[in-house]
Amino acid sequence: MDAIDIIVTKRDGGELSAAQIDWVIDVYARGGPNGSAVADEQMAALSMAILWRGMTRAEVSRWTEAMLRSGERLDFSDLPAPTTDKHSTGGVGDKITLPLTPAVAACGAAVPQLSGRGLGHTGGTLDKLESIPGWRAELTPAEMRRCLTEAGGVVCAAGAGLAPADRRLYALRDVTGTVESLPLIASSIMSKKLAEGTGSLVLDVKVGSGAFMKDAASARELARTMVDIGTDNGVRTVALLTAMDTPLGHEVGNALEVAESVRVLRGGGPDDVVELTVALAREMLAAAGLNGAKDPADALKDGSAMDVWRRMIRAQGGDPDAPLPVARERMEIPAPATGRLTRLDAYAAGVAARRLGAGRARKEDPVAPGAGVSLHAKPGDEVHAGRPLFTLHADDPARLERAVEVLADAYEIDGPQERLPLVIDRVTA
Amino acid sequence: MDAIDIIVTKRDGGELSAAQIDWVIDVYARGGPNGSAVADEQMAALSMAILWRGMTRAEVSRWTEAMLRSGERLDFSDLPAPTTDKHSTGGVGDKITLPLTPAVAACGAAVPQLSGRGLGHTGGTLDKLESIPGWRAELTPAEMRRCLTEAGGVVCAAGAGLAPADRRLYALRDVTGTVESLPLIASSIMSKKLAEGTGSLVLDVKVGSGAFMKDAASARELARTMVDIGTDNGVRTVALLTAMDTPLGHEVGNALEVAESVRVLRGGGPDDVVELTVALAREMLAAAGLNGAKDPADALKDGSAMDVWRRMIRAQGGDPDAPLPVARERMEIPAPATGRLTRLDAYAAGVAARRLGAGRARKEDPVAPGAGVSLHAKPGDEVHAGRPLFTLHADDPARLERAVEVLADAYEIDGPQERLPLVIDRVTA
Repeated sequence: MDAIDIIVTKRDGGELSAAQIDWVIDVYARGGPNGSAVADEQMAALSMAILWRGMTRAEVSRWTEAMLRSGERLDFSDLPAPTTDKHSTGGVGDKITLPLTPAVAACGAAVPQLSGRGLGHTGGTLDKLESIPGWRAELTPAEMRRCLTEAGGVVCAAGAGLAPADRRLYALRDVTGTVESLPLIASSIMSKKLAEGTGSLVLDVKVGSGAFMKDAASARELARTMVDIGTDNGVRTVALLTAMDTPLGHEVGNALEVAESVRVLRGGGPDDVVELTVALAREMLAAAGLNGAKDPADALKDGSAMDVWRRMIRAQGGDPDAPLPVARERMEIPAPATGRLTRLDAYAAGVAARRLGAGRARKEDPVAPGAGVSLHAKPGDEVHAGRPLFTLHADDPARLERAVEVLADAYEIDGPQERLPLVIDRVTA
Repeated sequence: MDAIDIIVTKRDGGELSAAQIDWVIDVYARGGPNGSAVADEQMAALSMAILWRGMTRAEVSRWTEAMLRSGERLDFSDLPAPTTDKHSTGGVGDKITLPLTPAVAACGAAVPQLSGRGLGHTGGTLDKLESIPGWRAELTPAEMRRCLTEAGGVVCAAGAGLAPADRRLYALRDVTGTVESLPLIASSIMSKKLAEGTGSLVLDVKVGSGAFMKDAASARELARTMVDIGTDNGVRTVALLTAMDTPLGHEVGNALEVAESVRVLRGGGPDDVVELTVALAREMLAAAGLNGAKDPADALKDGSAMDVWRRMIRAQGGDPDAPLPVARERMEIPAPATGRLTRLDAYAAGVAARRLGAGRARKEDPVAPGAGVSLHAKPGDEVHAGRPLFTLHADDPARLERAVEVLADAYEIDGPQERLPLVIDRVTA
């Protein structure tokens, strides 16, 4: 085996063999930057060749399997409840994991969920949960199992032992302009999700300005690739394509989204958040084989999802009754006219929230738990001149102006109505 | 400036600006593997993106200029004679530099020629000259100038100070499957040639089985790119496309080719070597502006080229009268039939010579000065059953059998006649 042969095969449009894929991932993952037989510059050239030439289904499934095998794979198959999980490709105001995990657990499945932190205009589930006093994201596999057993669900950070090849490759792609390869994106996501040991998986592939995929065709291709990878690796996998042209719910920001999620768990909350939570929960229960289970819409109404939520937060050191952090500064932006709000751009809202301190420009940056944007109207709602359209929350008053700027062009009143349906499509094996 | 932006621009099919090119080459050349702001993995990804997307004329000319500027550029413009040089893209039996340099110098031009060593099936000019006892390839710029002044021509190795960016980039491309990019090949060759300080340049772009470019269309594209680069960088540049379907001359191997070159310098030698030497010499003299100069065909006949040759060899420590090394073992291969030789494959002859010890599989390998293949017939010649077709020369008898093998399919008697003309095309600014 030789790294150059493998690069040249892909560069010239050929298909990599299973043996070539296993070798290149194994040697790359095990080697250090100098001792390795597959150097960073070789993996960079290969990644660019993959971005150029693509991968067949057999290649991308094997590539994912090889990354998965580079580390440990958790196993919860001995638990009494079947396991299921959801992964979202990321959006603005996407707090769905927070009500979803307890709702699904309340209906009888176990939900082992490894989540990430936010970067750029999208928020991260761990950042949101970390605004709850005492809650911690870093768990050992044994702690993860205990939370899962005691509470029925766990949301935590992926340990360094899971898919280490992906960790190294992602850092390399990040600095070599090779992030945007669909098969590499799909295998990166799926290697981590498969490593967490879930028996079934529902993917929430976002489409629109606030999503990584701007149009339904590319989102469908990503969904298809991930569903194929999951299926080929023995995990029942389904994907929903869902709208990310406008933020989900009325709150964008860490503690703001936790508070909104708690409203959903109390049986209230915004319609879109409830609708998407229930749709994804039903898919997860079906994927886990729990077809006669309780309906998750009922679990949100009858308090059973809330009970799981409180157990989950406590199991990870959090106090579900503690007051959430509030930003020091606040500013209201009034609607300039009366009429119907026809557009409220997800990307701009995400950028505004980041500028307010809710997100990060770079991985090392801290986030402000209380910062964010409250949206007093959503597309389709009536707005009134002079009444609040947005409330901005920040610790530093200088940040408010920088968010105002980006929100000025983010919405339209009485413009053309072009909204995506909340659930656009469904992709199955 | 940011390496990722530059990679992404090229990846997405855009044109790099002069400022981007200057920055990426400068920072890459100056930085060490760790301290650099352009890491090896970033240059590898960029090289693959260039291989994929290509480069415009403006890009490749600027890229070459930036590599040239990464080191020193020799300057011989103060010499009384105009300078001119030739570069060949490499072939089998290609000893043309040996008679050509003194022939051109004998007609009034100064020829500063930086040459390389052989790799794979092609020979290297320095390897050939090093078979002359005492001759040395490594000269300082001051020694180079002295040889040029005293003898009129100099053939030596490129010093480490010339185009160091190319040196680092070529080593990277070699291990990342990115050698085969036409603009990167062209700029690598041209950055070194422009650094040697020649005022004009003639390119011998080989076409055929023994050449890097197998067909005339790709050779023409390479020639066009190199002529454009030279022109854009202020050096009058012309290219000839010449045949490399069969070896040049009757000898393939280091000392064997020196001996054949000396026969040409004595006014004899094979027709094809003489014809190509004269054609390239006339182009070089015209490019140097010496249009009323002596004809190089006369310089070969009247002994004036031989005089320059003897001065050149002596100026670099060699003894032009010393006997050349002879291989310890010899084997004759007879023609199996009587008829007309219609094919004698350049690539196979090159591989045979390498197996006999005349060339290298890897850069570190030594070469055997006396090893090689003598060809007793060339395509078009009559051969006679039982009379010698090839003589093999090697120090190690085991090598003989490995060369016999590859030569068995290398020729044809009374087959279809499909020969390329020696000079196929001419490409000018």
